[in-house]
Amino acid sequence: MIKNQKFITNAADLPECIGDLSAVKDALYAIGGKWKLPILMALFGGNQRFNELLRGVIGISSKILSNELKDLEENGFIQRKVIESYPLVVEYELKPYSYTLLDVVIALSEWGLMHREKLKNEFSS
Amino acid sequence: MIKNQKFITNAADLPECIGDLSAVKDALYAIGGKWKLPILMALFGGNQRFNELLRGVIGISSKILSNELKDLEENGFIQRKVIESYPLVVEYELKPYSYTLLDVVIALSEWGLMHREKLKNEFSS
Repeated sequence: MIKNQKFITNAADLPECIGDLSAVKDALYAIGGKWKLPILMALFGGNQRFNELLRGVIGISSKILSNELKDLEENGFIQRKVIESYPLVVEYELKPYSYTLLDVVIALSEWGLMHREKLKNEFSS
Repeated sequence: MIKNQKFITNAADLPECIGDLSAVKDALYAIGGKWKLPILMALFGGNQRFNELLRGVIGISSKILSNELKDLEENGFIQRKVIESYPLVVEYELKPYSYTLLDVVIALSEWGLMHREKLKNEFSS
């Protein structure tokens, strides 16, 4: 069910604090772009190997996935975990800091569902 | 004040629903990128002319601002408003649909503030 009723649709109902512009820019700088959040969301379900991520994050190329994983690792969102076996297995694992993104992910997910519904209605009417 | 206590930092506290991956991708497709949310946030404060936005959205170029405004207009987030005067004045105004983004903006803003604080602490320690 789409919770349309929770969305404010006019200026009069705006809360006094509508967020800090530079903080939003900082957030977009760290986790904006097309791929970082989808990669982290795939890992919310549990550790994954490179090829599992490549299949799970539809549309990403091997080169971009590799770069994004390095970025996410450098910025403390994930870590590479080497499992001693033969052959060696490398998994990617969320670090606790990634869980701080949960509210962002949920807000984007709810908005995305609502937006998709809107586009569907416009297309069918 | 940074509300650190509200952020989940381990997997055990994750809610069952952590969002819908394809919905997040839809949302990022519509309002992701570096500039769309900062432009909309500038307009949350009231209508603005092109040059006001160019000054207010620090770092954006005239060409990118022009493209982003066209995109936002086509997708129903804003409208151009021509004020009959001499010379003509053109302002950009939010359409009601933009207000549905409020939860997303607030979540990103809170996370951005927390993230900035984290980087500051890492840098100073």
